[in-house]
Amino acid sequence: MSARVLIVDDLFPNLKLLETKLSLEYFDVVSAMNGLDAIAICEKGLCDIVLLDAMMPGMDGFEVCRRLKTTPTTAHLPVVMVTALDQPSDRLRGLDAGADDFLTKPIDDTALLARVRSLVRLKAMTDELRNRALASRDLGFGDPLAAAAAETGLNASLLIADDRRASAGRMAAALGQSHCVEVVCDPHQALEKATEGSYDVALVSLDFEGFDGLRLCSQLRSLDRTRTMPVVMLADAGDRARIMRGLDLGVHDYLVRPIDRNELVARIRTQVRRKRFAHALRESVQASMELAVTDGLTGLHNRRYFDSHLAGLFREAVLRGRPIALLLLDIDRFKTINDGFGHDAGDEVLRQFADRIRAHTRGIDIVARFGGEEIVVVVPDAGLDGAQQVAERIRERIEAAPFTIHGGTRTIDVTVSVGVAVRHPDDAGPADLLKRADVALYQAKQEGRNRVVAAAA
Amino acid sequence: MSARVLIVDDLFPNLKLLETKLSLEYFDVVSAMNGLDAIAICEKGLCDIVLLDAMMPGMDGFEVCRRLKTTPTTAHLPVVMVTALDQPSDRLRGLDAGADDFLTKPIDDTALLARVRSLVRLKAMTDELRNRALASRDLGFGDPLAAAAAETGLNASLLIADDRRASAGRMAAALGQSHCVEVVCDPHQALEKATEGSYDVALVSLDFEGFDGLRLCSQLRSLDRTRTMPVVMLADAGDRARIMRGLDLGVHDYLVRPIDRNELVARIRTQVRRKRFAHALRESVQASMELAVTDGLTGLHNRRYFDSHLAGLFREAVLRGRPIALLLLDIDRFKTINDGFGHDAGDEVLRQFADRIRAHTRGIDIVARFGGEEIVVVVPDAGLDGAQQVAERIRERIEAAPFTIHGGTRTIDVTVSVGVAVRHPDDAGPADLLKRADVALYQAKQEGRNRVVAAAA
Repeated sequence: MSARVLIVDDLFPNLKLLETKLSLEYFDVVSAMNGLDAIAICEKGLCDIVLLDAMMPGMDGFEVCRRLKTTPTTAHLPVVMVTALDQPSDRLRGLDAGADDFLTKPIDDTALLARVRSLVRLKAMTDELRNRALASRDLGFGDPLAAAAAETGLNASLLIADDRRASAGRMAAALGQSHCVEVVCDPHQALEKATEGSYDVALVSLDFEGFDGLRLCSQLRSLDRTRTMPVVMLADAGDRARIMRGLDLGVHDYLVRPIDRNELVARIRTQVRRKRFAHALRESVQASMELAVTDGLTGLHNRRYFDSHLAGLFREAVLRGRPIALLLLDIDRFKTINDGFGHDAGDEVLRQFADRIRAHTRGIDIVARFGGEEIVVVVPDAGLDGAQQVAERIRERIEAAPFTIHGGTRTIDVTVSVGVAVRHPDDAGPADLLKRADVALYQAKQEGRNRVVAAAA
Repeated sequence: MSARVLIVDDLFPNLKLLETKLSLEYFDVVSAMNGLDAIAICEKGLCDIVLLDAMMPGMDGFEVCRRLKTTPTTAHLPVVMVTALDQPSDRLRGLDAGADDFLTKPIDDTALLARVRSLVRLKAMTDELRNRALASRDLGFGDPLAAAAAETGLNASLLIADDRRASAGRMAAALGQSHCVEVVCDPHQALEKATEGSYDVALVSLDFEGFDGLRLCSQLRSLDRTRTMPVVMLADAGDRARIMRGLDLGVHDYLVRPIDRNELVARIRTQVRRKRFAHALRESVQASMELAVTDGLTGLHNRRYFDSHLAGLFREAVLRGRPIALLLLDIDRFKTINDGFGHDAGDEVLRQFADRIRAHTRGIDIVARFGGEEIVVVVPDAGLDGAQQVAERIRERIEAAPFTIHGGTRTIDVTVSVGVAVRHPDDAGPADLLKRADVALYQAKQEGRNRVVAAAA
């Protein structure tokens, strides 16, 4: 996968060396010789991944990494820290700063390319999602990136799949301080648990007795239920070929045995953050779309949602020869509430009206604000008797207890009139059904309000 | 990248052979021995890619492919046809059926894995997008998948980057019958054109004189402006290593010289379809999100959009010490229009009211339906004089010509009252500004309507 790689190093020969290696592999290379330039390039969106020298005069690599990872516009960029010595303390500082991975000088070409490719590929998967979330922010929906950058990466649910019990126990103890951890020794059982549960990250041993751990990794990465969950491999240092293979399969990260406790904690935290970032983006796009079919005042579905779904339900009822009922509910003398107590009181009444209707309908019924003080309920599979019962129950619940207004300081009595209609074989479409419910509602009003009138079937 | 591969073959030994090869590479394998089973598996969403034997009794592979590619729920699945002989006629039939690629028996392992990996990776990039689009469909937004499956793949804009003029000319002639084609001989110029234009597909030679075509491919795949555009390599048959390399870089497809005219046309059409599919998904998610901030009746922004953006513009004005103005416009005696001519007439008036206001404001102004018959306009950078002028112009344009109702069969005169306010240094927030505009509007009504009143600055 091609990508734009930013190399940050204060020494020109180091820059050139990396640039040559990456360029030969057809990566587009951008370079910076200090931290501030690097941050500027990242903020302009001119790179997909950062190779960052840890030791630089002025702002060092750790600080650059920390800034990138805590800035909403750059937090999603993978950062690989390049250190002179493979010092656990340096790795830890880097991980604390949010680095995604490490390379030790002199840089091994295979390791370099494997990590860059793996991180670029993982990033590409969430790029589309991030672009949609950015568009939603531009429309005024709040900033999912800010929330994601502030994510702590703690209190996650983790699955460890490892049959080396002592090692698994130590990991569970270390991770258990900030997360909820489950250990499974059998790889088949691990797969089952992972598909049934909802873990944030899975840690998978590559050294099961008699089972190839890479297969479990690969299954977790390809099954629908688990493909958004990061997977971290646990491997022996000598097992490098399989580690590279795993990265190629889409595994997110790895830890080499004997596992350093601090590195374990830091790497898992990074993966939890990454998973939650993608999740937040998905939720944000979803929430924006849902708002488009939600009535702001009552939280019910709006007319747009109702129109599109009534058509579908009606068609389905016709196809299956099933009944379908529609209730049109209108608050009696709503204008006198608005005029007498103010628009805010009218809004309070409407919200409570919606809540009571919601409480007496089922999940499969569609309840939507039809407009003004009218709410419509679609009851699939209901005939006239059933629909009338639903309507009568709602009418009673509205009349039974007064509504509160002025922030709960006052109460008023409210009643509702309901028009009920069911699908008729001659109906050309949902508009006919709606029309009959409307006529029935009108009749209910004419006959003195606070009553249910059913249209002749 | 791991994935679930569906192998379809009526002969058990063939199935087993492919299954073993793919399983060794850690792919999850599902199999089917006839077309109907294969289609059922695809429709259930149980695979990511299909390896499809062309020759099967009953429904043959071409027909299975055609059905998968014309069904909205399965059209996005990459299909690789497996044929016994490398017959151009078979390839063409497959391409016509919508196949994404071909393998000839006996299957070469390198080619098999390169194609499967490449197609799986490309699919993974649009999966997130597709999931969002599916969610939007479930909310009732219409079906982007149906439109995408019906896409013809014609009338595209294509860029050919090739310095073999004769060959480029022949391709341009063949493709020119259904598309708009541009030929560029210089690879640097090609990159420039691609980033500046908006091509649906680029065809890139790997054999430029003195330039590595893979570099151009890689750049096109990584630059922001071009990364959603499919790239097809033009290569010599002997250049297999670089073809595989290109697929690894994310290039979508390739053609081997001498280029078969029919295959060229068919493969480009497939790429155009793929590009438009992703584009349709993106647009659909975007449109769903935009609906959430759009007023259904007038097409203006709604209150939700206004509230979130006024806050931002106000903050910005404070930060930069710039003025900002707000106009609140209310149709005079709107109730008499509704009561006298019906709600439909009221809606017609509201729509025309919105249109006239839109026509006399700028793109950077925010025009939103504030509620009922009120529209609000935010004018960034405007002081009291400027804002009053805008308001006065709108008032005149409303009064100047009558509005049409009852479908254009009748006209009525409409006037508007406008309250204008500008930001004051003491304002704690946008609510203060809004409050003053509201008071000014009230005053305009009191003073006889059809007038502009500006709040004291």
